Amino acid sequence: MQHRIDGERLWARLLAMAQIGPIPGDGSCRLTLSDEDEAGRALLVSWCAARGFALRRDAIGNLFFRRQGRDADASPVLVGSHLDTQPTGGRFDGVLGVLAGLEVLETLADLGLETERSVDLCVWTNEEGSRFQPAMMGSGVACGILPLEQVLAASDADGVRVADELVRHGYDREPAPDVGLADCYLELHIEQGPILENTGKTIGVVTGGQGIRWYEIALHGEETHAGPVPMALRKDPVPLLARMIDLVHAIGGRDPQARCTIGQVRTHPGSINVVPGRIEMTVDLRHPDEAELDAMHDALMRGCRDLASSHPSIGLDVQLRWHSPVVRFDPSLAKLVRQSAERMGIAAHDMVSGAGHDAFHLARRVPTVMIFVPCRDGVSHNPREYASPEHVAAGANVLLSVVLERAMSRG
Amino acid sequence: MQHRIDGERLWARLLAMAQIGPIPGDGSCRLTLSDEDEAGRALLVSWCAARGFALRRDAIGNLFFRRQGRDADASPVLVGSHLDTQPTGGRFDGVLGVLAGLEVLETLADLGLETERSVDLCVWTNEEGSRFQPAMMGSGVACGILPLEQVLAASDADGVRVADELVRHGYDREPAPDVGLADCYLELHIEQGPILENTGKTIGVVTGGQGIRWYEIALHGEETHAGPVPMALRKDPVPLLARMIDLVHAIGGRDPQARCTIGQVRTHPGSINVVPGRIEMTVDLRHPDEAELDAMHDALMRGCRDLASSHPSIGLDVQLRWHSPVVRFDPSLAKLVRQSAERMGIAAHDMVSGAGHDAFHLARRVPTVMIFVPCRDGVSHNPREYASPEHVAAGANVLLSVVLERAMSRG
Repeated sequence: MQHRIDGERLWARLLAMAQIGPIPGDGSCRLTLSDEDEAGRALLVSWCAARGFALRRDAIGNLFFRRQGRDADASPVLVGSHLDTQPTGGRFDGVLGVLAGLEVLETLADLGLETERSVDLCVWTNEEGSRFQPAMMGSGVACGILPLEQVLAASDADGVRVADELVRHGYDREPAPDVGLADCYLELHIEQGPILENTGKTIGVVTGGQGIRWYEIALHGEETHAGPVPMALRKDPVPLLARMIDLVHAIGGRDPQARCTIGQVRTHPGSINVVPGRIEMTVDLRHPDEAELDAMHDALMRGCRDLASSHPSIGLDVQLRWHSPVVRFDPSLAKLVRQSAERMGIAAHDMVSGAGHDAFHLARRVPTVMIFVPCRDGVSHNPREYASPEHVAAGANVLLSVVLERAMSRG
Repeated sequence: MQHRIDGERLWARLLAMAQIGPIPGDGSCRLTLSDEDEAGRALLVSWCAARGFALRRDAIGNLFFRRQGRDADASPVLVGSHLDTQPTGGRFDGVLGVLAGLEVLETLADLGLETERSVDLCVWTNEEGSRFQPAMMGSGVACGILPLEQVLAASDADGVRVADELVRHGYDREPAPDVGLADCYLELHIEQGPILENTGKTIGVVTGGQGIRWYEIALHGEETHAGPVPMALRKDPVPLLARMIDLVHAIGGRDPQARCTIGQVRTHPGSINVVPGRIEMTVDLRHPDEAELDAMHDALMRGCRDLASSHPSIGLDVQLRWHSPVVRFDPSLAKLVRQSAERMGIAAHDMVSGAGHDAFHLARRVPTVMIFVPCRDGVSHNPREYASPEHVAAGANVLLSVVLERAMSRG
């Protein structure tokens, strides 16, 4: 028999959580460790306490709610996501994974199902990285990827430190559960892109995450007055900017899986009647295959060298500032997701996550998979972000099914 | 007989003035109506007082020093420029025209030459426009082009108004001389470009000023995450930016007299992992021929229309924000400059001013001409700005010669 979550309860809780830090246009603002973020967590704590799910917290403020399994020594099944939002965030990004996780725990309780393994609902601190950097902070600390002392010292734009806010909210450095001992980690999330919507599928079987490389590029010319200096005598970096744009977009056009973005362009001094002395720009390259991403990197570097040769009067400086390798989720968990959807008659589609998620950190420690559901127009990080009640329920039912498969298995 | 100015005295005064508001690297900072600007004016007043040149001031703080001619009713010959500087200005921009004017008055006095017409040395308030906008404020008011009350209300970044500063420095709204009654206006200035240096000429016979048109252009796409959305599904305005750059630089490349500058480019929100939703850019078009400038304008508008058609998913908005028509200086005065240089054996070159000057306003009221001298590497608005003592003296001697031609003529 196929168990089902309570779609109406889940939807009502999504709407209730959105009332914590509400912003115009149906959005939410719960910046990490703000009063709003803490109030959102308190609401979740109250819901979990009412069902008797025991709470543990760790030194970075991650929350772990447990529905106890039969075998207390068996490695638990983890589900979860985050409750913090972007400054103008929506109602689903992160929240869906947390509240669907709660829904799974409650459904198991409602059904009186005893699982072999405990099921833990995880709420990771600061996934968004809007107030404190880096993003995916809580999961990074829990997985031993980010040093605790370093992230505690991170401060926001007003100089308030993560450590100060944790103390203010009463987090008391309890010893953390070792997530590396878990059986697996499962995260339901809105897609944040248009692929499911465009293909008419309801469930994204997320097989991994794109590798990401960030570059900062500077073009150095000579600042001069827009009037007196003939164009042939200028060292104007702007024409080279056009060639750089063409280069980057040509790299992105070779392969439908490649993503190339020039997010920042800024001329200096940026005055209408001054030929810029310097242009700063950024490049974000992504691909789900590390070898292809290497090839994109090589094409960028080779292109920059060629452009530097053909524009000898302009200095061209390229720096790789950050990279995140390609993430591969656990194939057997992905297969479970695919089969669960199939069994329920829900159309599923294998895909790769373009955005970063806490699951990327978890995947380095335990078998991990993500489940996507469509979001309207692919919009996220925006009050307009929307996932339908039907898609939300479908995602939570697939999550329940995979949790049951794993939690019923012997430790 | 050919009269000559005292090059050493002029050079010493240029160096002395640079000590008012000195900044590292031989530059000066005398922002309009600051204490430094006022101290620079006080130094000039002391030099003029020592020679008995009578001072008048007007309501916008312009200074007029007179060496009286024989015929008190004859329309005077005006010489001058400005003493205010850019925040990181040099020692010559503006200052040269003022101190060479003083040098001309002093030379006439030293020689005991009685001129028919009076010769007035003018110091225009706020040519640079760095602290208060618009630039060329004092000459604009004196010529009846800018309304006095409007510019008195202009305020700097700290909210201090032009009117406040004039009161603080004791300017008391004396009735202004009517510059429209002058015989002519002559302004010596550094070129602020590389043409004289590159052609090996010492005197620029400035026949007019480029027409200028300023445009603000916005490209509207759709802001989206750099990861999840395939490139083919994005509305990324960045590739269109490359086409806009190519368009503007193609317009600039058709004609060596054309100047096209993209000074400002800025992507919004300007985040490394966000496809920009909007790009703002500026275009500055200049040409010494109004019909050619019209053609450049038409090419820009036509090009934008074509690009808008070929990029239907991106909005393209072009606004002409400001224009300054082509300025033609007085041909007979230009001829006098050319002949004076020739008579002294100084190599001269007809040219057009690329930058704006107070002389542009004066040219709308009285016969006007400018004389340029070379500046090293074409650099200005910079402490590195430099004109050699020989070139400075040559420019002042040509100025003296033209002043004598006009001031000796019957009113």
